[in-house]
Amino acid sequence: MKTDKLREFEPIFYPKSIAVVGAFGNPFKSGYTFLVNLVNAGFRGAVYPVSTNDSEVLGMKIYRSVTDIPAPVDYVMVCVPAHSVLPVLDDCATKGVKVVQMFTAGFSETGNRDGLLLEDAVVQKAKEGKFRIIGPNCIGVYSPSVNMVCGPDYYLGEKGKVALLSQSGGHAGRIIKAGIARKLGFSKGVSFGNGADLDSVDYLEYFAVDPETKIIGAYIEGVRDGRRFFNLLRQITVTKPVVLLKGGKTAAGAVAAASHTGSLVASQAIWSAVLKQAGVIQAENVDELVDTLIAIDRMPYCRRGNVALVSGLAAGGGGDSVTSSDACLERGLAIPPFSGETRKRLQSLVTWPGTFIPNPLDLSALGGDLKNLEVALQVVGADPAIDIVIVQLHADDAYYMWTVKGLETIIETIISFVESRMKPLIVVLPPGVVENERLKTEARLCQSGIAVYPSIERAARAIALTCRFYSNQSSR
Amino acid sequence: MKTDKLREFEPIFYPKSIAVVGAFGNPFKSGYTFLVNLVNAGFRGAVYPVSTNDSEVLGMKIYRSVTDIPAPVDYVMVCVPAHSVLPVLDDCATKGVKVVQMFTAGFSETGNRDGLLLEDAVVQKAKEGKFRIIGPNCIGVYSPSVNMVCGPDYYLGEKGKVALLSQSGGHAGRIIKAGIARKLGFSKGVSFGNGADLDSVDYLEYFAVDPETKIIGAYIEGVRDGRRFFNLLRQITVTKPVVLLKGGKTAAGAVAAASHTGSLVASQAIWSAVLKQAGVIQAENVDELVDTLIAIDRMPYCRRGNVALVSGLAAGGGGDSVTSSDACLERGLAIPPFSGETRKRLQSLVTWPGTFIPNPLDLSALGGDLKNLEVALQVVGADPAIDIVIVQLHADDAYYMWTVKGLETIIETIISFVESRMKPLIVVLPPGVVENERLKTEARLCQSGIAVYPSIERAARAIALTCRFYSNQSSR
Repeated sequence: MKTDKLREFEPIFYPKSIAVVGAFGNPFKSGYTFLVNLVNAGFRGAVYPVSTNDSEVLGMKIYRSVTDIPAPVDYVMVCVPAHSVLPVLDDCATKGVKVVQMFTAGFSETGNRDGLLLEDAVVQKAKEGKFRIIGPNCIGVYSPSVNMVCGPDYYLGEKGKVALLSQSGGHAGRIIKAGIARKLGFSKGVSFGNGADLDSVDYLEYFAVDPETKIIGAYIEGVRDGRRFFNLLRQITVTKPVVLLKGGKTAAGAVAAASHTGSLVASQAIWSAVLKQAGVIQAENVDELVDTLIAIDRMPYCRRGNVALVSGLAAGGGGDSVTSSDACLERGLAIPPFSGETRKRLQSLVTWPGTFIPNPLDLSALGGDLKNLEVALQVVGADPAIDIVIVQLHADDAYYMWTVKGLETIIETIISFVESRMKPLIVVLPPGVVENERLKTEARLCQSGIAVYPSIERAARAIALTCRFYSNQSSR
Repeated sequence: MKTDKLREFEPIFYPKSIAVVGAFGNPFKSGYTFLVNLVNAGFRGAVYPVSTNDSEVLGMKIYRSVTDIPAPVDYVMVCVPAHSVLPVLDDCATKGVKVVQMFTAGFSETGNRDGLLLEDAVVQKAKEGKFRIIGPNCIGVYSPSVNMVCGPDYYLGEKGKVALLSQSGGHAGRIIKAGIARKLGFSKGVSFGNGADLDSVDYLEYFAVDPETKIIGAYIEGVRDGRRFFNLLRQITVTKPVVLLKGGKTAAGAVAAASHTGSLVASQAIWSAVLKQAGVIQAENVDELVDTLIAIDRMPYCRRGNVALVSGLAAGGGGDSVTSSDACLERGLAIPPFSGETRKRLQSLVTWPGTFIPNPLDLSALGGDLKNLEVALQVVGADPAIDIVIVQLHADDAYYMWTVKGLETIIETIISFVESRMKPLIVVLPPGVVENERLKTEARLCQSGIAVYPSIERAARAIALTCRFYSNQSSR
């Protein structure tokens, strides 16, 4: 069963050859873009352009039909208008193609009778021709194992353990790019649009058994078979966390979803209730989806949300201590007092005797010495009451007070604490004036496998969702 | 009355001369930093360093006492330890100084008897010496009119119409910097720490009558005279919007606030109820405070939140249309259908006849032509059902699809729509992979007076709070 599923999806996520069907004369047309992206990403297989309009593109021979290609073709990307699709599918059947991904739109999502009938005809062709359809109305597959990028997107990141399932191509691209920017690795991703043949349930069944996938992220507007979908999710979340963003939560969103992917949207209350029952982490928006995937990726199996807040690395940390306490408590995290032993050890850093050492820890109150950060992390990290350490770093303040050299020391101190694997550590690094320094700092931290968030609110929410998931999972 | 208040605060926000009292030998000590920042900001008045430790700093003569300065001194910054403060205040009295800002901490915020008594002594000295105290435990005044920066902060932005009041120095600095980064101008700002003498109410009374201040932002942890504070706010909000972030909303936050500024925090429910009654806009966190100040600054008097959502400038806008609809509806905005006239005019852009034109408008569905943006903005902006236009722009997608030249065209199109003053326009520009291009785009848009947000959720919330404020204000 498991081996069947893996074999069935092999040509989808690991195709050995891809044909792109479309016009290549215009660089703003999808066919050309898909082809260029595939070539530039360094796709690890053969690539064949197919068109009747021209004979050569990028120095490659253009075949007039898929059937003309003198080698086997696993996967076909279809970038021609809806009215030209059926003959292409006939060719795919003749050629023995295994997967057809249709970028082409103009099917059930239009709500027109013609669009619905054409989509039925497409599915019928696939059944008869013994190939599977991804889409229509989608940007297809992202698979870093074989250097395959989603059609119109040319960004290829490192391979990781998150699989992404998205009904929207735009969101698929943006979630993957947001992940790449923050060094979140994907095992694979798929935008499946109308899901006329292969649907969310099919992809989830595959991700469930895929050994490369440890975490699943999903953007869903609607499902065809709700019962099957939720039962499957309930099984998957026993071993793999699923973070899901539901599009079309409101009346206006539902109307937009209907014309976007033809989805009929059930009430948000029902969705939310069954997702909860299935043990699925519900993200409120795209940022939260990415934030939570990062938290799970960086601090797996974290079940308790007792955090130590460390602030005041450059400017005063008093205000940060107050509002970050609020942000954590409001999102269900706890900020326990430090143990007597921790307080005693931190006391040695304090320049004014008698100062009380609370959690949040405001380093600026300990006197301005960057060495305090190293000691503080060691001591706080060793406290058995603490599960997670959150460091609040302001690039503007640190850059101005300590220069780039001090910022470098802060980064190295944080990285070496994380490498000691004492406790998970999260960095909050809000934007500000010296954006170049902040971006460099963020890149360094992310590259070292540290979860970085632009605000304490987003960090606290992602941590809380992660801890709640693992806590529920362990009590199932 | 009004003239008295303006005259009383003249030396606070427009001092003609400043003395900095502290040690100047160590660049990591506050005295040196305060002095350097004041000089580098180009403060429009005389600056005098005062210390008994040295005779010269930055080529300036160091005076041994404030009384030794051979010219009048309006304002003194005190950066010496708490135990050395009282003699400095005696000198200030002798010299006839008008305002003393105390960066020095170690007073009531410690919760110790010694600290409380010392703070009482400081206030007594001020009364006897006929000068006012800002602080203690604060970073003081930001006043771009006279190129004056908050003590440890060297960032000076353009002058604007927002006054900031903050009990936290760290947050004051960060809010001002976040504003500067997004081209939000401040009329002035003050961090007042423990507020031992001049307190939140005093500053608010001044901001209420200050002709340069049109909008007020505030970070408050606690107040001494709640009734006076709320009555004052109720009066102010009749003419000037007030956006307030309350620190210490939760139990943990309240504990942190007590040790930060010695604030005793009333229950959040009470705070929230009275702030609502006073017509104050309540921000949930620092980002939301800045976001809302920007929305008010850029779209004043906007009372109705009927938005047109425009997406799909490069990659498909389907998913964005769905989740942005959700984000707007969930935050109290409306997305009305376009009028028949609007739909008819937009129809002319559509390459496929019969396509229905909904709001959200997905430009990618109109065929890839950047000229469509200009026409779409004109048409949608003229629709009487629409109050605000939100454009969702993804720098990654736009940069890749249209190159920097296309991104330039998008920016110019948006700016020229805004300059036509047809309707307020907000841009949502999320971070991604090509951060340099995004930052350049953001800077261009912000410089042209356009409000830019990193997510639709933050934009929608800021717009909703703004519209609710003006709608309530007009019905008072």
